[in-house]
Amino acid sequence: MREEIERITILQFTEQGRNEIEDVVVTELPLTIILNHQEVVTLLCSPTKLEYLTVGYLWSEDLIKSKDEIREIKLDRETGVARVETEREVNVLSKPLLASGGGRECTALSGVQRVSVESPMKLSSSQIFSLMENFVQRSEVFKTTGGVHSAALCEADSLLIFSEDIGRHNAIDKVFGECLLEDIPTDNRLIITSGRVSSEILLKVAKRNIPLLVSKSAPTNLGVRLANDLDITLIGFVRGKRMNIYTHDERVVIDEN
Amino acid sequence: MREEIERITILQFTEQGRNEIEDVVVTELPLTIILNHQEVVTLLCSPTKLEYLTVGYLWSEDLIKSKDEIREIKLDRETGVARVETEREVNVLSKPLLASGGGRECTALSGVQRVSVESPMKLSSSQIFSLMENFVQRSEVFKTTGGVHSAALCEADSLLIFSEDIGRHNAIDKVFGECLLEDIPTDNRLIITSGRVSSEILLKVAKRNIPLLVSKSAPTNLGVRLANDLDITLIGFVRGKRMNIYTHDERVVIDEN
Repeated sequence: MREEIERITILQFTEQGRNEIEDVVVTELPLTIILNHQEVVTLLCSPTKLEYLTVGYLWSEDLIKSKDEIREIKLDRETGVARVETEREVNVLSKPLLASGGGRECTALSGVQRVSVESPMKLSSSQIFSLMENFVQRSEVFKTTGGVHSAALCEADSLLIFSEDIGRHNAIDKVFGECLLEDIPTDNRLIITSGRVSSEILLKVAKRNIPLLVSKSAPTNLGVRLANDLDITLIGFVRGKRMNIYTHDERVVIDEN
Repeated sequence: MREEIERITILQFTEQGRNEIEDVVVTELPLTIILNHQEVVTLLCSPTKLEYLTVGYLWSEDLIKSKDEIREIKLDRETGVARVETEREVNVLSKPLLASGGGRECTALSGVQRVSVESPMKLSSSQIFSLMENFVQRSEVFKTTGGVHSAALCEADSLLIFSEDIGRHNAIDKVFGECLLEDIPTDNRLIITSGRVSSEILLKVAKRNIPLLVSKSAPTNLGVRLANDLDITLIGFVRGKRMNIYTHDERVVIDEN
């Protein structure tokens, strides 16, 4: 966790008075991704798993399709630049210019037919509560700084991959980048996120054929609509023994406890 | 609040059992901003104050400099397109492509000399706690959905402008867009935000010559560093009668209560 946080001296006010204390804040790194000599984006991110973030971002944006086509990834931590070379040329400029990586409704809706998720996966309510409990406990940087989001790829009974980042999009892209580079399948598995579920988040998950998306927070109406259309079970506000199932509840089996 | 939320039927799990209930989720709108026939960005946002958001975004990105140069703003809510015509031509493509609207460190650092804030403003600790209390009470959509951020421009004793949005950047751009179009000065006033303070947020505020930035949440290390360099008082984790002052505490006067 060394590089993800920075120690600083601050003035803290409490009802007991004012004190100079040593505190920790989360580190923010601008990472510029260059694909075959074309600048794609500058992400503000936490400085961990940067290769995974780079590859995960390009995969989410459909700028790479598979691990095989990646010829080289060169990461310069000093300058915050990740260079990716691929076998085939990719026209980065043909992509529409987006605010935060993929959220136009037209893109969303044109993708609907392609990415609809098929999976026989079912989970019990107690499995979901137990996964969320593990997920929250893993969140070291959040507990220390309150400044990051986290995301995890899970099986019914265990967390397989866990990532933290100052951006909720980045945390999920890090998970999927790790899946691509380490050959970890995503079918019939679920994603847990600490963050809100907007259309962008939903689409990232749909592209990886993930049938269940579980969040500690709230979804947006477009997130719910896309989850419904794409056959994804969307669960939000999982806190303690409570949760809201927004779509496709057929994948959740109720335990009698 | 009608258009900012959508009513849906969900399945809610509690320890008392499972129930089909009517719930509300926050609305998400993709808004494409076109400046003089050039597409600038598509923002995912809440569908309120869209003119303010459009103008605030362009102002934050230095694509417009003043109210005078705006010839026309045409907003089509049906298609989610905002068209802005200005007096002079602006080369949108000369801007670097960014992840979420302005966060490259090189931009940040090159801007440091230009935007350093000068202000004699001072606030007492009880004024800060009282403003945050009002701010949290105003947050209607958050209280209903848990899915939005808010931002406010304040004087020492009152909230002047208040905005909510699914994006923390958008909430602040809405405030500044309203300032520009309604001729509301920002000097010697403060901004309160519900969201985390990254370098992007800090720079938006610095550009408007705001001497105090107060957040309910955590800052990043770059946010703290820029606040320090730009002479901005950065306060975080304001909750109840507690707060952390990260930089330039000379603007905060301690009350004995």
